[in-house]
Amino acid sequence: MKVLITGGAGFLGQRLARELLARGEVKGPLGEPQPITELVLLDVVPATGFEDSRVRSEVGDIAERSVLEGLIDDETSVIFHLAAIVSGQAEADFDLGMRINLDASRVLLETCRLRGHRPRVVFTSSVAVYGGEMPDVVQNDTALNPQSSYGAQKAIAELLLNDYTRRGFVDGRVLRLPTISVRPGKPNAAASSFASGIIREPLNGEAAICPVPRNTRVWLLSPRKAIACLIAGLELDAAALGMQRALNLPGISVSVDEMVEALREVAGEKVAKRIEIKVDPRIEKIVSSWPGRWDTTRAEQLGLMAEHSFADVIRSYIEDEHIEVR
Amino acid sequence: MKVLITGGAGFLGQRLARELLARGEVKGPLGEPQPITELVLLDVVPATGFEDSRVRSEVGDIAERSVLEGLIDDETSVIFHLAAIVSGQAEADFDLGMRINLDASRVLLETCRLRGHRPRVVFTSSVAVYGGEMPDVVQNDTALNPQSSYGAQKAIAELLLNDYTRRGFVDGRVLRLPTISVRPGKPNAAASSFASGIIREPLNGEAAICPVPRNTRVWLLSPRKAIACLIAGLELDAAALGMQRALNLPGISVSVDEMVEALREVAGEKVAKRIEIKVDPRIEKIVSSWPGRWDTTRAEQLGLMAEHSFADVIRSYIEDEHIEVR
Repeated sequence: MKVLITGGAGFLGQRLARELLARGEVKGPLGEPQPITELVLLDVVPATGFEDSRVRSEVGDIAERSVLEGLIDDETSVIFHLAAIVSGQAEADFDLGMRINLDASRVLLETCRLRGHRPRVVFTSSVAVYGGEMPDVVQNDTALNPQSSYGAQKAIAELLLNDYTRRGFVDGRVLRLPTISVRPGKPNAAASSFASGIIREPLNGEAAICPVPRNTRVWLLSPRKAIACLIAGLELDAAALGMQRALNLPGISVSVDEMVEALREVAGEKVAKRIEIKVDPRIEKIVSSWPGRWDTTRAEQLGLMAEHSFADVIRSYIEDEHIEVR
Repeated sequence: MKVLITGGAGFLGQRLARELLARGEVKGPLGEPQPITELVLLDVVPATGFEDSRVRSEVGDIAERSVLEGLIDDETSVIFHLAAIVSGQAEADFDLGMRINLDASRVLLETCRLRGHRPRVVFTSSVAVYGGEMPDVVQNDTALNPQSSYGAQKAIAELLLNDYTRRGFVDGRVLRLPTISVRPGKPNAAASSFASGIIREPLNGEAAICPVPRNTRVWLLSPRKAIACLIAGLELDAAALGMQRALNLPGISVSVDEMVEALREVAGEKVAKRIEIKVDPRIEKIVSSWPGRWDTTRAEQLGLMAEHSFADVIRSYIEDEHIEVR
């Protein structure tokens, strides 16, 4: 079987690819193991660093119909649709966000529909689909009320995936990701970029600016657990998902203060002192519209798990990225 | 000021047009009266029977960008977007439903955005945006979970309208209509067509088939109140609507049995006996996925009202359509 990952050169895409290659197989729709014979990584830049004959890196514009039509064939029975324009950028460039977060998602679903082979499609959504007046703990049946264009586009793609699933065009699974922290590498245009930066930069001996107030509560998941949840989400029995294909993934609810405290616990006072709070109202407005916690009963019943503490998240980052604490 | 009604040759569109012409003005964004100088009725067929110099009937495909671009100018400060493919037809013809219910709504919003004049846009949505597991009484913050393509398309258009409003491209208002009953004329392809047919046909001396079981609960609003709500929805103060532009309109929750009983009360046993129950599983499946009641506190606080009983609804139909009970 062939697996397609859109956004395959991105951080999560690459990490997912490595995990899939290491496993070598995924469960099929009936629970039977299916060996991965080909792993196609589509992105706007080449996916590099894979020395594995199963990997094929493809560069293309995902919103161009011909690109996906050329990549999705009858053997492509698993698609991880991760490609997206992040929140800050989708707010700054409305057309680009609509094109990639909405139009490309629809092109992907349409391509599957016309192909008629009903692949499993795992789509990553976000905390940003919620907003406005919310209960302290968002429930599975809390109404979506996005307060950013990114969140609106993700919510729309969720509805499309649900309807394409209901009609039997695809077998879709929407995984609403918490903010992923700690991401390695550089800051990006996501409004949530700080949630990695204030841990990553200090651990790297650098100063970090936190653009939201100390009491801001965020809902976090480590890359390690996120990848495990993506694969578990793919392997879930369709019947267990029922009529609502969207699943709020587990996470940890922490305030900025608690994040700083966890960093102090793991890496010491000197490192924790490298964080400076300097509120950026544009970012604060977006981040504060997201839920700081949601009910994870359903995800946990289905076997999806997060870390137990943010200190554990930092430790797994240090381990996975071979960081030497300075 | 100029008013555009899409679906302007349809039943609700025509009735809305007549009411607007009779009023001659609507409240502006600041509550000030604004005279209607032009009323453009766009539809796939001409809107006939208007002998009023303010009315302009336009025939065109609303999903074609050039059509709306040619009709929406800086004077078009009010748009009622009623054009839609009904539930049964959108389920039967997926592409057509997507094209009119989704693409055309987006073209309309994009046209306004590019024009830059920020008109008020009233968009009619539906009970069909809800579905799956629901509380007995749907709340304003109950998650949308459409179980039909029509419902999914309406829910998506709602999200678009909310985001275009948040960004200041339009001043949008989503009115979620109950099933409209009693509609005059002929049955249509809506799964809810029976909710008018089982009253209209018997009053007209004809037999009527009801395709859903007697205990099926529906959420109804008369055309008369629906039109009043559409205009009241337009005239609502934007600040009162806040971050969530969708409003569940008031209605009456009745079972089929209670509808038959109300018809008996208003028109007698002979008329009521013309209804025959003959369940059509395809229609039952769609209709039973809709909520039979929702909380209307918010709409009522904003001054929107329904009838008090279904017998009153039948009486207003008899009055409005000059029916002679036979």
